[in-house]
Amino acid sequence: MGQSLIYLIPIFGIFALLFTYWKSSWVSAQEVGNEKMANIAKNITEGAMAFLRAEYKVLAIFVIAVAILLGISGLSEGSSPLVALSFVIGALCSALAGFIGMKVATKANVRTTNAARSSLAKALEVAFAGGSVMGMGVVGLGVLGLGTLFMVYSNMGWDLAKVITVLTGFSFGASSIALFARVGGGIYTKAADVGADLVGKVEAGIPEDHPLNPATIADNVGDNVGDVAGMGADLFESYVGAIIGTMVLGAVFLNIPGFESSNEFMGLNAVLLPLVLSGVGIVTSIIGTFFVKVTEKGDPQKALNRGEFISAALMLAATFFIVAWMLPESWTLGDTTFTSMGVFWAVIIGLVAGLLIGIVTEFYTGTGTKPVKSIVNQSLTGSATNIIAGLGVGMQSTAIPILILAAGIIGAYYFAGLYGIAIAAVGMLSNTGIQLAVDAYGPISDNAGGIAEMAELPKDVRQKTDKLDAVGNTTAAIGKGFAIGSAALTALALFAAFMTTSHVTSINVANPMVMAGLLIGAMLPFLFSSLAMNAVGRAAMDMIQEVRRQFDSIPELKNALALMRKNEDKEMKDWSAADRTEFEKANGKAEYGKCVEISTKASIREMVVPGLLAVISPVLIGFLGGPEMLGGLLAGVTSCGVLMAIFQSNAGGAWDNAKKMFEEGVDIQGKKYYKGSEPHKATVVGDTVGDPFKDTSGPSLNILLKLISVVALVIAPYL
Amino acid sequence: MGQSLIYLIPIFGIFALLFTYWKSSWVSAQEVGNEKMANIAKNITEGAMAFLRAEYKVLAIFVIAVAILLGISGLSEGSSPLVALSFVIGALCSALAGFIGMKVATKANVRTTNAARSSLAKALEVAFAGGSVMGMGVVGLGVLGLGTLFMVYSNMGWDLAKVITVLTGFSFGASSIALFARVGGGIYTKAADVGADLVGKVEAGIPEDHPLNPATIADNVGDNVGDVAGMGADLFESYVGAIIGTMVLGAVFLNIPGFESSNEFMGLNAVLLPLVLSGVGIVTSIIGTFFVKVTEKGDPQKALNRGEFISAALMLAATFFIVAWMLPESWTLGDTTFTSMGVFWAVIIGLVAGLLIGIVTEFYTGTGTKPVKSIVNQSLTGSATNIIAGLGVGMQSTAIPILILAAGIIGAYYFAGLYGIAIAAVGMLSNTGIQLAVDAYGPISDNAGGIAEMAELPKDVRQKTDKLDAVGNTTAAIGKGFAIGSAALTALALFAAFMTTSHVTSINVANPMVMAGLLIGAMLPFLFSSLAMNAVGRAAMDMIQEVRRQFDSIPELKNALALMRKNEDKEMKDWSAADRTEFEKANGKAEYGKCVEISTKASIREMVVPGLLAVISPVLIGFLGGPEMLGGLLAGVTSCGVLMAIFQSNAGGAWDNAKKMFEEGVDIQGKKYYKGSEPHKATVVGDTVGDPFKDTSGPSLNILLKLISVVALVIAPYL
Repeated sequence: MGQSLIYLIPIFGIFALLFTYWKSSWVSAQEVGNEKMANIAKNITEGAMAFLRAEYKVLAIFVIAVAILLGISGLSEGSSPLVALSFVIGALCSALAGFIGMKVATKANVRTTNAARSSLAKALEVAFAGGSVMGMGVVGLGVLGLGTLFMVYSNMGWDLAKVITVLTGFSFGASSIALFARVGGGIYTKAADVGADLVGKVEAGIPEDHPLNPATIADNVGDNVGDVAGMGADLFESYVGAIIGTMVLGAVFLNIPGFESSNEFMGLNAVLLPLVLSGVGIVTSIIGTFFVKVTEKGDPQKALNRGEFISAALMLAATFFIVAWMLPESWTLGDTTFTSMGVFWAVIIGLVAGLLIGIVTEFYTGTGTKPVKSIVNQSLTGSATNIIAGLGVGMQSTAIPILILAAGIIGAYYFAGLYGIAIAAVGMLSNTGIQLAVDAYGPISDNAGGIAEMAELPKDVRQKTDKLDAVGNTTAAIGKGFAIGSAALTALALFAAFMTTSHVTSINVANPMVMAGLLIGAMLPFLFSSLAMNAVGRAAMDMIQEVRRQFDSIPELKNALALMRKNEDKEMKDWSAADRTEFEKANGKAEYGKCVEISTKASIREMVVPGLLAVISPVLIGFLGGPEMLGGLLAGVTSCGVLMAIFQSNAGGAWDNAKKMFEEGVDIQGKKYYKGSEPHKATVVGDTVGDPFKDTSGPSLNILLKLISVVALVIAPYL
Repeated sequence: MGQSLIYLIPIFGIFALLFTYWKSSWVSAQEVGNEKMANIAKNITEGAMAFLRAEYKVLAIFVIAVAILLGISGLSEGSSPLVALSFVIGALCSALAGFIGMKVATKANVRTTNAARSSLAKALEVAFAGGSVMGMGVVGLGVLGLGTLFMVYSNMGWDLAKVITVLTGFSFGASSIALFARVGGGIYTKAADVGADLVGKVEAGIPEDHPLNPATIADNVGDNVGDVAGMGADLFESYVGAIIGTMVLGAVFLNIPGFESSNEFMGLNAVLLPLVLSGVGIVTSIIGTFFVKVTEKGDPQKALNRGEFISAALMLAATFFIVAWMLPESWTLGDTTFTSMGVFWAVIIGLVAGLLIGIVTEFYTGTGTKPVKSIVNQSLTGSATNIIAGLGVGMQSTAIPILILAAGIIGAYYFAGLYGIAIAAVGMLSNTGIQLAVDAYGPISDNAGGIAEMAELPKDVRQKTDKLDAVGNTTAAIGKGFAIGSAALTALALFAAFMTTSHVTSINVANPMVMAGLLIGAMLPFLFSSLAMNAVGRAAMDMIQEVRRQFDSIPELKNALALMRKNEDKEMKDWSAADRTEFEKANGKAEYGKCVEISTKASIREMVVPGLLAVISPVLIGFLGGPEMLGGLLAGVTSCGVLMAIFQSNAGGAWDNAKKMFEEGVDIQGKKYYKGSEPHKATVVGDTVGDPFKDTSGPSLNILLKLISVVALVIAPYL
């Protein structure tokens, strides 16, 4: 069975890519809308693509350099120079996943705006189609890339251990591109956001997304670059990392003395199981997308939930049968007996843990919940207390997810050993296709709203896109839960895989080298976060200066701003005719391209150091301190990284929603406060602090800990 | 030799306490100053003592309850119910150390103010005398308590392992009281500070330390409660923890097969070495204090440095001879050869590491340094960027200290095994006597300044106390370096001791129970910090409401505030006579006692949960998950705790000094900004956020990680 399955797996990937092509063509065939809209969309698309081009140019150098090193080191025994090929293909697939997502997102956004001019149902359809191109693209490339390489390597006459060792390069490629993309995109989006807000909104006093603001296109490009391309690369690496981690541990079954001869067939199946589950997950995800439909008066939230629920239920049933079919009812390794149903239970534990973490995330960050309300209350005494409260909520929000994770680890191990921990992560991610479709649909709707604003469309269009944007939140929170949970479990699986590969049987914390490694590992998430945050600060400064320069040196802009101040209390239609004529002259004078260029340059420049830190530190520690110290480093970076990721993401999310609560007005100590009140201003400060937390450093940490683990795994044979 | 030394050690402790008594009488014999000053000092003293009484009442319940549990569990083999006695005496000594420090500090502060009316040299003498009472009290009680108990237990006919097992209760007692004192004191001081600032300064617009502000006495009490008593208990526990950790590891030499008979004498000496070093450190510290003298035009900084430098040099020389005298030139354990000079080098490594960490701390937090200047620059764009910059600096400041620590651990281990790591911590702390004298001198001078303000003394008095206060900073930074470094090393030593006692030979991170423990351990510092910060928030709210209530409901206060607003632009002497008469009526109407009571109640109430968290979690994990999971917990809490402690302390310190830089004016982008400017206001927000970081949760974490380790060590025999 195993041998024929090997040829079947890539077909699932091709199937996903065909779906992607079909959906993508459908999106392209939709109407763009009026000329102004088309123009704005063109600017955003060009900016986004310019960023990708610049980013990929820099990354190409990195990929080539690492590939050469891997190729040379692959000459040693037990490995092959082909590990460089795996790496390059992993990097390419990751880059391609980001590219596909961005391409369709920049098409879908304006078409969603246009659809929203006529109907909510149609707008949902377009936005979700865009999201599902991204989702299926990511999983399709993952399964196709991994499946094909595995098929090729299996036919080289190598033993399974070598096949998988060479294959891990794929995960390395995927993770390193993902880290750069997340960090670069995160810096871009926040620099543009802060620049647009601070100079445009605060200093010049013009509304958000106003065409006079030179940073406004960069801001919208940033949403695509950070939330879409960044997220695509991110989930691609999670998906691939979980599969590879499980494959390595599955192969362990083949290395146990006395196990080789009798059970090889089963061992190969344990290796293939994560690939098969992911392949079937593609099918269930695609089925789910067909249920995401809404009538004009219907609730988009219900539509999304229906799609997700149906594919989750199908996937669960499929998992039960696949596990029972591929694994023997029970088998013994050393003195432990495993059962196929144990593996199934491990998957269930992964799903339940991810779901629970998502619910807790929602509790700590959702609008109107007790913790977020506490931040709102503390805003009454100013921004300092708002910040303290937000930091407190973020730190506190780590407790329950960690307990859930700990219980999940122990439970999955109880049912299926280390393999159980790894397969639990695969379980969480098997529905990535539709999960990511829902996630990506959010920024598309958000961008659609921005285009509606810039194109000065009627207010009801924006209302519709806002409605679409708002409903994705709960799903996004649960998505975050899966991301955090799977990152931790995958890192642990890669850790176990590293130990197997480096032939270290115990990483004893009482060993001072391990202690030192543990401390250094725990420090890396702090250093990495600080680098990312400082980078955002510097890039934002560049942007601020450029916007100020344009306001100062372009006479038409300067004039228009003065006219806006002069007519502050009037609506545009009540201005004098002369003023209006004068104001019109500013049209198209803002140099959006300059801002896009600056954001691009700054983010590319700033992503290098944090990215290299992640790649170089495990190599340094591994070769200078030996495999045990490297093991300590992995343990430190995993534990502290998970904590810092949860802390930063949740603090950022809570601050964001505390601010949003003022939009409909909130009660604090019996008095009602609205947007523009003093407590609201305090929450704006909190939200700004939270931005790099939740959009730059927080999500990058999830990648960081896996990237460091996978680098360790790749270099393990040479230590 | 060993046997007679046992009787000698307590004498060093008695010697320190005699010195304490002598210095304390000298301080009491100084002039208090005028009636107003005496009155203010009385209020502060009463408030501080009321807090201690309330705190110790609650802690007494805790101590009795734990002592009963320990007594019962002590009935098992290898232990003794006397572990409860050790615990109670450890707790009593810790409480006494806090009490002595607070008592003399509240005497020394007003006397320093009075001395500053005539001479700077005299003021330094008084303040430093107060500090040295505190310093010698702490080390005296530590050496006397530990030395006496060791002497008594050695005569019970037990083997050395049992003697030390029973003795660890002392460290448990010291650490748990220290944690409650740090957390309680930290909450008290910040609640009073925020209450006094937010309502008094910001809302009512009266200057700092103004007698009209009902929270002003509570604020000054807070400085004593938090900075003096809290710090005393804190250093007491560090000191004791390092000694005990080394004793346990020294005893290991006796447990190695084949080592018992031939080398028992040396083994006992390895146990006694940390006690002897600490005892001799008392003498060198006392000698050092005699060199802290300054002429009227002299530099107080130099005086303090001279004292510290002389005792450090003496201690270093003494260490060399003591180590050579007490340990054989070389000996072999298993297949490792140790030398007495190796042990000496380990001590040197500890000292150098502590010093370097202190220098790095100073670099990241000192006035005018590059990182602090970067926070100042980012304040130009508002409080949000100030906060982001401060968080960035705090996170980044962890990197080098951790690398130093890692190198220190590896180096100390290389020279003298696990024992080397422990003795390195003892080396850092052997001069605690004078180090703490310098540390405690800071808050005394600060308080003296506050009294000068409240008593409306001439400005030059305040200037002198400010000068005294300012010079302690570098020394304080180096003190912090020692505190962090020794905490990490002590925790590691206790960790190794825990493994020895629980007969676990390897805490393998690849074991899922260990992984789960590691994650939970890493989470505890986050949860603990959030509890501490939320507690500060709630306590401050109570205080804010009380101050508002008084301003609203006491007619004379209300009137006086209205008069101040009316005469806003005039100095008091230019007011109309009628206004002045009316204003005078408010004298003594502010109900300081109420505010003191509220701060006391709130901080006692709020210290319970975080304190219990630290004591209960290792017990729960140990008994539910077994010793290996507990080992994972210790590794997690140590690594993440050290990081969070450095991050929070340094971020807080950097924010504080960024604010202070505006006092003399700073250049930002070529423009000069002063106090009251917009960027300055942004730094006030940063400073307020940093307050609970650096004064409540940050320093408490140092204790937390040792307390959890020592609890693990105490329960180890029963797992």
